Amino acid sequence: MRVVVLGGGFAGLAAARRLAKAPLDVVVVDQRNFHTFQPLLYQVATAGLDASDVAYPIRTILRRYATIRFLHARAQAVDVDQRIVHLSGGSGLSYDYLVVATGATGASFGVPGVAEHALSLYTLDDARRVRNEVLLALEAADTDGADGDPGGGRVLVVGAGPTGVETAGALSELIDVAVRHDGLHLDPDLTRVTLVDIQSRVLPGLDPRASEYAARALRSRRVDLVLGAQISEVTARGVRLADGRELCAEVVIWVAGVTVDGTLASTLPALTGGGGRVLVRGDLSLDGHPEVYVVGDAAAVSPRRVEDGGPPRLLPQIAQVAIQSGDHVARQISHRAVDEPTAGFVYRDRGMMATIGRRAAIAQFPGGRIIWGTTGWLAWLALHLVYLVGFRNRAIVLVNWAWRYFKWPSGPRLILGDVASRPVTSLSAQDPIVDRDAVQQPDRSTPRAGPAPGRR
Amino acid sequence: MRVVVLGGGFAGLAAARRLAKAPLDVVVVDQRNFHTFQPLLYQVATAGLDASDVAYPIRTILRRYATIRFLHARAQAVDVDQRIVHLSGGSGLSYDYLVVATGATGASFGVPGVAEHALSLYTLDDARRVRNEVLLALEAADTDGADGDPGGGRVLVVGAGPTGVETAGALSELIDVAVRHDGLHLDPDLTRVTLVDIQSRVLPGLDPRASEYAARALRSRRVDLVLGAQISEVTARGVRLADGRELCAEVVIWVAGVTVDGTLASTLPALTGGGGRVLVRGDLSLDGHPEVYVVGDAAAVSPRRVEDGGPPRLLPQIAQVAIQSGDHVARQISHRAVDEPTAGFVYRDRGMMATIGRRAAIAQFPGGRIIWGTTGWLAWLALHLVYLVGFRNRAIVLVNWAWRYFKWPSGPRLILGDVASRPVTSLSAQDPIVDRDAVQQPDRSTPRAGPAPGRR
Repeated sequence: MRVVVLGGGFAGLAAARRLAKAPLDVVVVDQRNFHTFQPLLYQVATAGLDASDVAYPIRTILRRYATIRFLHARAQAVDVDQRIVHLSGGSGLSYDYLVVATGATGASFGVPGVAEHALSLYTLDDARRVRNEVLLALEAADTDGADGDPGGGRVLVVGAGPTGVETAGALSELIDVAVRHDGLHLDPDLTRVTLVDIQSRVLPGLDPRASEYAARALRSRRVDLVLGAQISEVTARGVRLADGRELCAEVVIWVAGVTVDGTLASTLPALTGGGGRVLVRGDLSLDGHPEVYVVGDAAAVSPRRVEDGGPPRLLPQIAQVAIQSGDHVARQISHRAVDEPTAGFVYRDRGMMATIGRRAAIAQFPGGRIIWGTTGWLAWLALHLVYLVGFRNRAIVLVNWAWRYFKWPSGPRLILGDVASRPVTSLSAQDPIVDRDAVQQPDRSTPRAGPAPGRR
Repeated sequence: MRVVVLGGGFAGLAAARRLAKAPLDVVVVDQRNFHTFQPLLYQVATAGLDASDVAYPIRTILRRYATIRFLHARAQAVDVDQRIVHLSGGSGLSYDYLVVATGATGASFGVPGVAEHALSLYTLDDARRVRNEVLLALEAADTDGADGDPGGGRVLVVGAGPTGVETAGALSELIDVAVRHDGLHLDPDLTRVTLVDIQSRVLPGLDPRASEYAARALRSRRVDLVLGAQISEVTARGVRLADGRELCAEVVIWVAGVTVDGTLASTLPALTGGGGRVLVRGDLSLDGHPEVYVVGDAAAVSPRRVEDGGPPRLLPQIAQVAIQSGDHVARQISHRAVDEPTAGFVYRDRGMMATIGRRAAIAQFPGGRIIWGTTGWLAWLALHLVYLVGFRNRAIVLVNWAWRYFKWPSGPRLILGDVASRPVTSLSAQDPIVDRDAVQQPDRSTPRAGPAPGRR
């Protein structure tokens, strides 16, 4: 009896680990050979952590389970009648039970220019691109100011959910480090981090008191908040708002929401709900195909069982839902393999967390209790370290964080990849470091070197 | 009085640090914002260390020197008459003294196919490409063996100098880990690391006893040695030798030697010697331009002063020469700034080192004394940790290495970048994991996905 798990994220690994306890052959398929600890991706994007601090080889994670096999391949389609998953390269993988945990990706909501001019922050590669672009913008700003007249670099974060809030807060700390410790000459008035959202408050998913605290903490870190603002277009110079205002920025980070890539999902015999999520029954299986389950970000999971006729409100696409749903379907499959009764999925809310920066975080528990400030930050730190996959990572993340906290960071502020340095655009004044006569005026509106989408 | 240093490698940083002790304005220019600890690049390429373990932001390194300024730009040409360095973007940087420390790059020696089918190992990006390609080859081999009949992945290392020996030794350990700890199904007879050199012995630059020890240690790690073999062509399937033999490999790593990129060097009014290295006078300055110095890998440095009429034998392109030559010219500039007498460059040989793997390394000291085995390995480890730039790196490298040594590694075996997984090529036998009927026969000779040169 073979169970195929598509995806090595939180949902897929939770399912695989639980399935290992049953007498079943399990095959985990992923196009990447590593699991990504997404809640900390923003730390990689802001040069606080390394890629390998938040990513871990799936083989290493599953090493101890003799019944689990990893297949490094991309799943392209599912034939539910033949019970075969079609893989990249044209080969097929047959299954008795299938767990689809292929996750989601950044959503543009149809706003023009997002793909060309904005950076998403959902994968490890996204995080590396964001880091490169932000550091390049700061270096270019410093060079602009090489004549002693400091320049500025503006970074715009779109989406004031947890990811946006955490990214904006960490960016302001990164800029602080760049100025105070890397000796970049930046004008604090020109070097801004701006957080934009269509909603009227940050962290709209949390209690208003949490939103107020987060807004205060962000402002105290010199993050500009532009709330209740609808973005009509992203351009090479920034974003244009529906009310006609234009916000200029060298880098635009788009974390306004996620959507499910339809490539695989469209091959499933199921309807899709909001954001392309696959509609599932109360036990997370497909209607008419009880051997196929969809979990995590890819699934449209109702807090109640669909049978109860509950409202179409869906669970958020967060790690907790992914882990619990993956674990749930693994239990159901294990039960069915020995003809035991199955049950519907009931989500247990463990609360929400978001950190703004050093000694400033929020934890909102079920029932509405909220802790914040240093206490919230320590709780956040402890939880994430406990959840981090694999000891080595935990140890080194701890070293990084301790180092970062006690002495301002010697963080990995490396501009990696084949990224050209920005043109030097300074005009020279007294004691010129760069000579006026040789300078060409740059065209700010032309796409610049760098691995951002559409800039290649 | 401004000194411009082109390049943030060993030579450039050694020069900058020494210049900081004199009352001079120093500008360090590099197209990358980080220094690379090249002696450990092979560890990144073989997934033992992370990029940030061997790379460190130049700004962080130079943070403590008030008179040093970093400029993130690419130097494109030198106008020695105007005393201006032309930078990317068209601007110019004037100097009173110039230190050219722009290093070298991999040399193909005109062998066809090197650029298209082989990977070099000189920059951090090179190391990341090698890691990706090697891990992809192993994953593809494992998938080939998914029907229980294990496959193999062959890696060819061209050049049996220290880099080639260290890379080959580390690759064999990486494969050992992949099989024993990551659960890859590989046939040990099909999974081979082969070290090729035109010379008749490995480490030809060292004492023959060292070569013998290295050859023994490599063979004991199941590395195949093909010596005295001239390569006539690199193809998509491996390399072809002058005697007609063909060595098949999924990955070819080309570390046969380095050459100086002529882009900048050709704008200097100087002759070039072997490997495009710029010919310098005994004090490392240019003939006719005593204010321009060339140091490190970019310079053709004679062990004796040219005035002595010594033979054209040149110093090796290694870190020790780079550091000592950078330091030397900084002293000369400091002296000349206060009209003190200058001196020619005399290289002090500190010996050579190479490691084959855990508890197996060689250190050859001036005078010919050699230590090897565990003692040599501990000496090698200590020296490299001491030399590593920046405490944080040293600390984390130590954690990584200790971890790697005491428990077989949870190393960063991540396939990063936009790398597609290889097509699954298995044919299925009994208990097929991949179904025969759906399989397409792959064309092994077609370029595969991956960031290797010419494969994009």
